Amino acid sequence: MGESFFLFIALFVALFYHESDSIAFLEAGTITFLVGGLSYYFSKGAQNNLGKREGYIIVSLVWVVFSVFGCLPYLLSDAIPNVADAFFETMSGFTTTGSSILNDIESLSHGILFWRSLTQWMGGMGIIVMFLAILPTLGIGGRELFIAEVPGPTPDKLTPRIKETARNLWGLYILFTGLETLLLFAGGMSFFDAVNHSFTTMATGGYSTKQASVGFFTSPYLQYVIIFFMFIAGTNFTLSYAFVTGKMTKIFKDEEFRFYCLVILGFSLIISLGLFASIDSEYEHAFRDALFTVVSIITTTGYVTADYLLWAPFLGMLVFTLFFVGGSAGSTGGGIKVVRVLLLFKNSLYELKRLIHPNAIIPVRYNKHVVDQKIVTNILAFFVFYVILFLISSILMSLWSDDIYSAFSVVATTMGNIGPGFGKVGPMENFHHLPGLAKWFLSFLMMIGRLELFTVLVLFSPSFWKH
Amino acid sequence: MGESFFLFIALFVALFYHESDSIAFLEAGTITFLVGGLSYYFSKGAQNNLGKREGYIIVSLVWVVFSVFGCLPYLLSDAIPNVADAFFETMSGFTTTGSSILNDIESLSHGILFWRSLTQWMGGMGIIVMFLAILPTLGIGGRELFIAEVPGPTPDKLTPRIKETARNLWGLYILFTGLETLLLFAGGMSFFDAVNHSFTTMATGGYSTKQASVGFFTSPYLQYVIIFFMFIAGTNFTLSYAFVTGKMTKIFKDEEFRFYCLVILGFSLIISLGLFASIDSEYEHAFRDALFTVVSIITTTGYVTADYLLWAPFLGMLVFTLFFVGGSAGSTGGGIKVVRVLLLFKNSLYELKRLIHPNAIIPVRYNKHVVDQKIVTNILAFFVFYVILFLISSILMSLWSDDIYSAFSVVATTMGNIGPGFGKVGPMENFHHLPGLAKWFLSFLMMIGRLELFTVLVLFSPSFWKH
Repeated sequence: MGESFFLFIALFVALFYHESDSIAFLEAGTITFLVGGLSYYFSKGAQNNLGKREGYIIVSLVWVVFSVFGCLPYLLSDAIPNVADAFFETMSGFTTTGSSILNDIESLSHGILFWRSLTQWMGGMGIIVMFLAILPTLGIGGRELFIAEVPGPTPDKLTPRIKETARNLWGLYILFTGLETLLLFAGGMSFFDAVNHSFTTMATGGYSTKQASVGFFTSPYLQYVIIFFMFIAGTNFTLSYAFVTGKMTKIFKDEEFRFYCLVILGFSLIISLGLFASIDSEYEHAFRDALFTVVSIITTTGYVTADYLLWAPFLGMLVFTLFFVGGSAGSTGGGIKVVRVLLLFKNSLYELKRLIHPNAIIPVRYNKHVVDQKIVTNILAFFVFYVILFLISSILMSLWSDDIYSAFSVVATTMGNIGPGFGKVGPMENFHHLPGLAKWFLSFLMMIGRLELFTVLVLFSPSFWKH
Repeated sequence: MGESFFLFIALFVALFYHESDSIAFLEAGTITFLVGGLSYYFSKGAQNNLGKREGYIIVSLVWVVFSVFGCLPYLLSDAIPNVADAFFETMSGFTTTGSSILNDIESLSHGILFWRSLTQWMGGMGIIVMFLAILPTLGIGGRELFIAEVPGPTPDKLTPRIKETARNLWGLYILFTGLETLLLFAGGMSFFDAVNHSFTTMATGGYSTKQASVGFFTSPYLQYVIIFFMFIAGTNFTLSYAFVTGKMTKIFKDEEFRFYCLVILGFSLIISLGLFASIDSEYEHAFRDALFTVVSIITTTGYVTADYLLWAPFLGMLVFTLFFVGGSAGSTGGGIKVVRVLLLFKNSLYELKRLIHPNAIIPVRYNKHVVDQKIVTNILAFFVFYVILFLISSILMSLWSDDIYSAFSVVATTMGNIGPGFGKVGPMENFHHLPGLAKWFLSFLMMIGRLELFTVLVLFSPSFWKH
């Protein structure tokens, strides 16, 4: 029923532009509302006693159910007639991946484009988090749901109360989206494009209303505005909250934020110099392309202004490395997450110390606190899972790929919720050519990536189902 | 001085074949002996009090020094006139990698070919382990040296005494080498080729006396013999020792061995069916090619009978996955090692259990014993290091590569001490085309891989040098 509310918003956009596919939104919204209403009616007597397990199941199911109903507008309007394609496009939306099967984006109606961006905006901050913020009935068990949807190792939450946290997160999210819309509009973008790009920037989604992505907007001002808001979207919202409430000192002491800035600056500088030395005669342009690409990939947004496949292998390799970093914990970015990468680095260096002093206890420190060994083990296990899943999925994808390289790249970009990849799914290509089965599998991978592996994988563990 | 002994053996081979480059071996042996003798003379008064640190330094240095003197025959005989090439070929020998810069192997003299195989044979079971077995003076501090050269997580050593362990290991190693020589010779291989291939099989090295590698010997008997001994060389020598001394039951209860067999059988079956379905009309041939390739790659030998670059992407991907497994702990195989992969898998699955039962203590079990958390953390840190080093090295290599794919593949094969790779360093190619700087860097990578990362990396840790 919550989703139907958003479908009706898209209906109004379609009606505003007098578009013939308005009827598709009316139908989709009605079907979604009716199925939701009936389910609610028949489950009214059920217990509302949520434990850890129920949290994992509900969150995973919500993402599947949202994608199932979310693809109705594409199917009913014939914008995407194929079911596998429509589901892929919707899941890619909700998970803020941004990989697309569409070949001619500009030919789509305003309603469909808006719905496409809206799925990313809803998924960006989290569907569950949104309903935690607005629905009173979800108070009980809300903590379990929140943890299952936002499992990242966030040491300090915004506030101890989940509901208030969810509200603050969504409040900030709406504020930043509004701000970006104004700034883009002020820079000459049409209001419709400004809203859509703000939605997909803040969600680190990457869907654009243009086939050429942000490359369509050649104005440096617009590109810098988008860079800035991608950067914000990839930052821990706890820090943005501290910024808005005036607690500035906290921000620059945060190790994750410092590492995040360092990686962005370092990679952008090296790449910009590389571009300047090879294909770009103007340094400002080289720097902008480099910075845009670095921020777009590390935040897992996936907007494109330059085709990095045409860059020298060394520069392409640097971009590929960023595929395995991801946004900050508590941001809307996907991937492994900066804090995990940082703690993995730290723990490895400490392991060398441990080898030299085998009897000393050398814990990992983060933001001046000792990190619990359980958290370190969990992060290490997460990383191993990520690599194993990456390899196994690449093996599977190689069944449908022309070469090993493209198989790796397709998996890296969907698991990391990024969008474009390398090889056959480069920034100027899309995912249309893949067979249906591959699209279903990749949709599943996007969901696993978005929910940070464990929430979904735990459902496949036999001990989960034992009482 | 120990190395000069082996150089003089190669001299006798060269003399036996009346080859003109005999003089090169005489010169190389004499120089090596003199430098060794002088060093010994000037360090006679020094303390022989070895700690952990000294162990790491000595082992790392020994490998560098052996490679420096080991490349003398190539340089002095003009077989390989370039220093970077000669050092690469020697380090690739001692580390049993088997990557080569030679374009026309059959044109080399018997002496040079023999020396090339001999470097692998010495490095296979370990240079330090060899001297521990024969030199009485190394008794003190021998434990530290042994651990630094054989750092793998081997829960039970052969015997509690290092010297006896080293002797048993080398005894078995010589026994198997002799046995393989006989079986290959009986199958029609020339005695010279049989000795050389036995050296490089048991060392999981992969240097061949033929440009076409083992593919030159089309006899199925010879190929199966080599498969069998590669399999043995990639098995923990503790198990082979148990086998030889009649303790059979121990072997099939060993989890690592079972996993090793399972991976080999599983991958061989799938690949053989894939080959049979695509390019191979005869199943025995398809099975033999598949089994040979799988065993050659997982044991990190690197012999070639088929060009897996021509296989379907799915089959190539399976081969690529094996690049990240490696031989068993306590074998002569390199790479990550089967036991580490197994424990990484296990720990990840247990982590899912830990998420469901957050208050329960769920340790990892191996061979029915609980594995100490310290060992698990060490293995996890090893894996993270491996991946980080792999990525950073690939970035560096991309400076000298035409494409990202080849850069990854070059690093994967040298770090894992395998030999052939993918792309520009495929099984029918070699490493000759790379620039000198890249060859030095890759030589360094081979050494890091052979000494299982920590022994070398610890030297780069600032806390290592603090007193």
